[in-house]
Amino acid sequence: MTRAFADEARTFIDEHVLPAEPVLAKQVADTPGAWTVRPVVRALQETARERGLWNLFLPPGPHGLGGGLSNLRYAPVAELTGRSPRLAPAAMNCAAPDTGNMELLAHFGTSEQREAWLEPLLEAQIRSAFCMTEPATASSDASQIATRIHRDGAEYVVNGRKWFATGAMNPDCRLLIVMGKTDPNGPRHRQQSMLLVPRDTPGVTVVRPLTVLGYDDRDHGGHAEIVFDDARVPAANLLGEIGAGFAIAQARLGPGRVHHCMRALGMAERALDLCRTRANERIAFGGPLAAKGVVRTWAAEARVEIEALRLLVLKTAWLMDTVGAREARLEIQSIKIAVPRAVQRILDNAIQLFGAAGLSDDHPLAEMLAAARAMRLADGPDEVHLAALGKAELRLPSTATEGEVR
Amino acid sequence: MTRAFADEARTFIDEHVLPAEPVLAKQVADTPGAWTVRPVVRALQETARERGLWNLFLPPGPHGLGGGLSNLRYAPVAELTGRSPRLAPAAMNCAAPDTGNMELLAHFGTSEQREAWLEPLLEAQIRSAFCMTEPATASSDASQIATRIHRDGAEYVVNGRKWFATGAMNPDCRLLIVMGKTDPNGPRHRQQSMLLVPRDTPGVTVVRPLTVLGYDDRDHGGHAEIVFDDARVPAANLLGEIGAGFAIAQARLGPGRVHHCMRALGMAERALDLCRTRANERIAFGGPLAAKGVVRTWAAEARVEIEALRLLVLKTAWLMDTVGAREARLEIQSIKIAVPRAVQRILDNAIQLFGAAGLSDDHPLAEMLAAARAMRLADGPDEVHLAALGKAELRLPSTATEGEVR
Amino acid sequence: MTRAFADEARTFIDEHVLPAEPVLAKQVADTPGAWTVRPVVRALQETARERGLWNLFLPPGPHGLGGGLSNLRYAPVAELTGRSPRLAPAAMNCAAPDTGNMELLAHFGTSEQREAWLEPLLEAQIRSAFCMTEPATASSDASQIATRIHRDGAEYVVNGRKWFATGAMNPDCRLLIVMGKTDPNGPRHRQQSMLLVPRDTPGVTVVRPLTVLGYDDRDHGGHAEIVFDDARVPAANLLGEIGAGFAIAQARLGPGRVHHCMRALGMAERALDLCRTRANERIAFGGPLAAKGVVRTWAAEARVEIEALRLLVLKTAWLMDTVGAREARLEIQSIKIAVPRAVQRILDNAIQLFGAAGLSDDHPLAEMLAAARAMRLADGPDEVHLAALGKAELRLPSTATEGEVR
Amino acid sequence: MTRAFADEARTFIDEHVLPAEPVLAKQVADTPGAWTVRPVVRALQETARERGLWNLFLPPGPHGLGGGLSNLRYAPVAELTGRSPRLAPAAMNCAAPDTGNMELLAHFGTSEQREAWLEPLLEAQIRSAFCMTEPATASSDASQIATRIHRDGAEYVVNGRKWFATGAMNPDCRLLIVMGKTDPNGPRHRQQSMLLVPRDTPGVTVVRPLTVLGYDDRDHGGHAEIVFDDARVPAANLLGEIGAGFAIAQARLGPGRVHHCMRALGMAERALDLCRTRANERIAFGGPLAAKGVVRTWAAEARVEIEALRLLVLKTAWLMDTVGAREARLEIQSIKIAVPRAVQRILDNAIQLFGAAGLSDDHPLAEMLAAARAMRLADGPDEVHLAALGKAELRLPSTATEGEVR
Repeated sequence: MTRAFADEARTFIDEHVLPAEPVLAKQVADTPGAWTVRPVVRALQETARERGLWNLFLPPGPHGLGGGLSNLRYAPVAELTGRSPRLAPAAMNCAAPDTGNMELLAHFGTSEQREAWLEPLLEAQIRSAFCMTEPATASSDASQIATRIHRDGAEYVVNGRKWFATGAMNPDCRLLIVMGKTDPNGPRHRQQSMLLVPRDTPGVTVVRPLTVLGYDDRDHGGHAEIVFDDARVPAANLLGEIGAGFAIAQARLGPGRVHHCMRALGMAERALDLCRTRANERIAFGGPLAAKGVVRTWAAEARVEIEALRLLVLKTAWLMDTVGAREARLEIQSIKIAVPRAVQRILDNAIQLFGAAGLSDDHPLAEMLAAARAMRLADGPDEVHLAALGKAELRLPSTATEGEVR
Repeated sequence: MTRAFADEARTFIDEHVLPAEPVLAKQVADTPGAWTVRPVVRALQETARERGLWNLFLPPGPHGLGGGLSNLRYAPVAELTGRSPRLAPAAMNCAAPDTGNMELLAHFGTSEQREAWLEPLLEAQIRSAFCMTEPATASSDASQIATRIHRDGAEYVVNGRKWFATGAMNPDCRLLIVMGKTDPNGPRHRQQSMLLVPRDTPGVTVVRPLTVLGYDDRDHGGHAEIVFDDARVPAANLLGEIGAGFAIAQARLGPGRVHHCMRALGMAERALDLCRTRANERIAFGGPLAAKGVVRTWAAEARVEIEALRLLVLKTAWLMDTVGAREARLEIQSIKIAVPRAVQRILDNAIQLFGAAGLSDDHPLAEMLAAARAMRLADGPDEVHLAALGKAELRLPSTATEGEVR
Repeated sequence: MTRAFADEARTFIDEHVLPAEPVLAKQVADTPGAWTVRPVVRALQETARERGLWNLFLPPGPHGLGGGLSNLRYAPVAELTGRSPRLAPAAMNCAAPDTGNMELLAHFGTSEQREAWLEPLLEAQIRSAFCMTEPATASSDASQIATRIHRDGAEYVVNGRKWFATGAMNPDCRLLIVMGKTDPNGPRHRQQSMLLVPRDTPGVTVVRPLTVLGYDDRDHGGHAEIVFDDARVPAANLLGEIGAGFAIAQARLGPGRVHHCMRALGMAERALDLCRTRANERIAFGGPLAAKGVVRTWAAEARVEIEALRLLVLKTAWLMDTVGAREARLEIQSIKIAVPRAVQRILDNAIQLFGAAGLSDDHPLAEMLAAARAMRLADGPDEVHLAALGKAELRLPSTATEGEVR
Repeated sequence: MTRAFADEARTFIDEHVLPAEPVLAKQVADTPGAWTVRPVVRALQETARERGLWNLFLPPGPHGLGGGLSNLRYAPVAELTGRSPRLAPAAMNCAAPDTGNMELLAHFGTSEQREAWLEPLLEAQIRSAFCMTEPATASSDASQIATRIHRDGAEYVVNGRKWFATGAMNPDCRLLIVMGKTDPNGPRHRQQSMLLVPRDTPGVTVVRPLTVLGYDDRDHGGHAEIVFDDARVPAANLLGEIGAGFAIAQARLGPGRVHHCMRALGMAERALDLCRTRANERIAFGGPLAAKGVVRTWAAEARVEIEALRLLVLKTAWLMDTVGAREARLEIQSIKIAVPRAVQRILDNAIQLFGAAGLSDDHPLAEMLAAARAMRLADGPDEVHLAALGKAELRLPSTATEGEVR
């Protein structure tokens, strides 16, 4: 049955999404100032819905929502969407950060919160953003979060500055999920809470867009810097319990990393497809590039890395489905470390094979490289995960000492 | 049931094999001139047999021999034997090159050949060697094989020089399986045949032992250079059909690479075990090595590589069991390329963590490094496989052009 | 005396150029549609001229022009300009591609050509572009150049399509130096000629700008795709002799590569400066980033690479000054291969240290990474140079065989 | 004049040393139990002396000894000796550890000490060893040294265990220079002293030889583990001042690292020479290895690394000659980090090119690989130097804080 979904998704992407890429490029070029989802995406969304390729990321749950797939069954679909990362995830309503946000609402939201935000998100009527990273602190260390949320009567008041809030430049983005400290002196991982803040709340200012290695991702809502200056929301907007912010953030990461990693592998597969054609067509120094030893080595190394890492991500998805994200945390860290690195290297070589054209936007390689490179920092830099994973690996069976991560 | 075998094997290795390592070291030191299997191995063989941990590598087959496991079920056992590579494979009669040679006899041998050679090999009464590599040619290119086998009446006559015939220094080695050209002008992959040559055949001279990165592997029969000077054997000693030498060699490689790769992963796991203890005990510059960021990074990267590559090897084993080695050839090449590289890197870092001790033979790291490094050349250098795999990867769906591998 | 120039340049850059970086950012943001040099550059140019920091790249020559420095003496100045690559080279009239173009005019131009184009270039009154790379061919292989130049009476007629003509989007760009084939059937390296084509020549169409990893470099004139459709220029516009195009292109590359490499090292030094501050200020997991082992390793490896490669570039510059670019060709290839790779790696690590901020344009790291990455393709991809250098290295003393580069 | 010495050395090595390599191999094979310098070395020493190629490593000094060269002038000679590392350094009395020991005696020894030990060392009448590394501690951290030296009347008494004392298996080795703590509670870098201990002192036991990646270096005196059990020497055997052990050890390292690094580069050059021949002779898959893209890439990358690193080592030598080892300490660390790594990689690729032959001792590659690998641990593992260099690199100009090296 996964196979069926994957086959459906492949057909949809081959027949509808890939041909739409130049249409998107033209629509973006024609409306350079806009941060909205472009019409071509809307049209693809209609088609995807008709085919049942909609919200597949959301596993069915007690909340009665989510007609989607298990992590293991969704993973191959996620990979396929990575072949056209600007269009396919959005077309199937499976694009970050909305996916993670919808998961949080499904798992931790009250019925009122789900009705207000989750349902329109599942319908793609609105978009959302996740406000975690801060400019002034190393926010991969949750104890450093500087944003403060304090209770004032029936309201919570937010003060702080967030950035790289993906999607928040889009006027359709109505909801910000904001992490801040409610108890700065509490236990390290109980200091933080998660709050639902409508984007039009007074005191919320979207300051400016940011670029990611030169790309502003304007057709996907960009990446915003946002100031919260005494922004007030009803106390009912707390997501989950007070002090549960860190735990909720962790819960969000598991499926997100599987999605990200599978999409990244899809990007690598797309790159290999492009290379295959290019390497056979392009002639230099007496023969096609496909006959050069160095090019063959790149292709072989890419193939081996993709195959091994795909299995590791699938195993991780299976563990999440069976024993849960907490038990699978070392695997989740492992794929977060290994996949973006490998895909960055594969894309870098693909660009090298394409020559100057690879640097341009005539092919998706350069933008995919920016995306893969950014993944090595999103949700915490590689080094934080390497240190934590290495610490776990070196822990003696009989000890449970806690040292500082270096 | 695999689980049960793996549990048995783990217990056997932990309780019997690892404690026997210093015994082997002493026995080798006490008999420096000998190339034989040492007494401690004989003793372990008895124990392994009693426990049913014997000849597990050989899948059951129509030949009525081999009570062993499928490739997928044997793989975890092979990994475990890699934890003590000088002892465990030999103890369980699962050591190369005998394993591959026994497979050949099981699959391609006549009943007379099986009775004469396979049965004593399965009983560990004799040992065997495989004579493929030649000093004078790049023998990963089978068309370069210089050894000649010609028919003379009821006999085949062999002339040529082979080297790196593992095990052939051991006086218990009675059988040499020799690849040579029977039809130098035939089609590229039909020129070669495989011949069973008793080691005591007149005209066969074991010239000298060779070292592998300083190790002579004398307790495992070493690596020999052998000259064949008009060595004559009965025509019935042909293994398989005339002209089938290349195909037989290929058939030998599939399971062998799974075994090699799993053993190499077992070596990496052993290295991590050793590092875990060392890194917690060893203090430098104010704390244990386990608290240093660089050490944690090594450990984390090792863990991720091992996990991903183990899945790839297991998938390959499963494909071999279900669709056959021919259909799995790209996966077989993939593991051959990726695993030894990764294990070499892991061992190199482990040595670095151990400091000077890591270079010595007080720990198994240095010798395991030599073994992993050698695997990047055994059965053809990485580069031949990278070129072939890359060529396949870059082949356009509609073409089947054959260019030279570069 | 070099020291004096370098000291002057350092002071100028520290006191004038670095503080002008945010001014440039603002001027670009305020005039998003413009491809021109921004006013802040003009102001810096005035200051640089007054201080004698002008046209230093151009060694004095028989042409009576160029009050500049030898390659060895200019190199440290070039490195310093790399600390602020969008401003400093332009401020000192030492920015590519004008530098290379001015060198060509100085060495190969007639006095009329020099008067018409070189003098206004040396005064920064006009800008120029170099049209070599083509979209349809692997143009690092000069035999593949598809652009045609044919003689028609007193004129040359150009037909072809070029791209990545840096600077050509700038309306101040008046001159295109175009490489095309005048004798497609001649000896491989005598087929090409170099032609001076005014940008406003009928038949010349600047089609569109191209991006380089997301950056359009609009304040530096961008990178243009240009079509030549029966573009006619007087025969006197030939640069150098007919058939000398390849030799002229080669001559252009020597100094250019020294400049590029030194600028790239300057970028790396700037990145290290930024990292030094950041790593001490940023706190994560219990201490400043500067105390983490992984960060220290990055810094150490960067320092060692920079030091070693700077010496190699300086030696190359010295060889060019003393024995000429032809004799120094292996060194020139060596720096072209090694420096951009190393600088890309250093910048990648610097971004990792900066976290999300490193991806943005709040710091120069992301744009510098794009520049370093592009250098691995500019003037031919690394692989072409590696193949040529490796071929030379492996040539036996007694042979001069010519095989195909693979 | 350096040129002249280098020319002399090259001629001597080409004409006498390289042809002696198989002679040494035979003499070692013929006397497998011996740890002595073999006769062929003695003969080469005679020739080298006659040609003035003797003790060149020792710069002239106030001690009236040392007719040698400055570091900068000796460096190219040291590189040449690396081409035949088992023979050339010994032939020219320029082999570690005697070189470093002779330097210590020349700089810190009393006239009595110089007469007793330095003069016979300079004559190659005796050999010496340096006892620093200990099995039980991370001895790159001098504060961990466990060996104790205490004063008892007119004697010093040594207790401790050292290992990897290169050369100490050789019966000609008469002198051990031993580092131990005389003041375990003193300031971190004043706790240690250096003592001259005759190898035949009662209480000194040479316990066993150690191997380095499989090699026992028996023709060079091996690597010994030595126990000091109340070993007593006259108080006059103290080298330098009490508490100066750390400073003396540091002083020893500077020239030693230049020598080691240059020899390592010589090993890399020898490997390239061997590859050049092999790659042209060896045919596989349709052509010589020298025509394969991957092989050319290896050769090119090796050439670039060697050229850049040689310049860095030469600069370091020049700095040592002009401003002293203390001022050049970052450069000394830099070469210690970068050269062995690069040479290990170059040799690893060379072995790959040679195939199985590269693993054997038919060529010097395998043994050179072991030597290069060991250099990454000798005098402290890379990581200690990377951490220290990175710490210095990241130090803000205004600070001099001391944090722990991680």
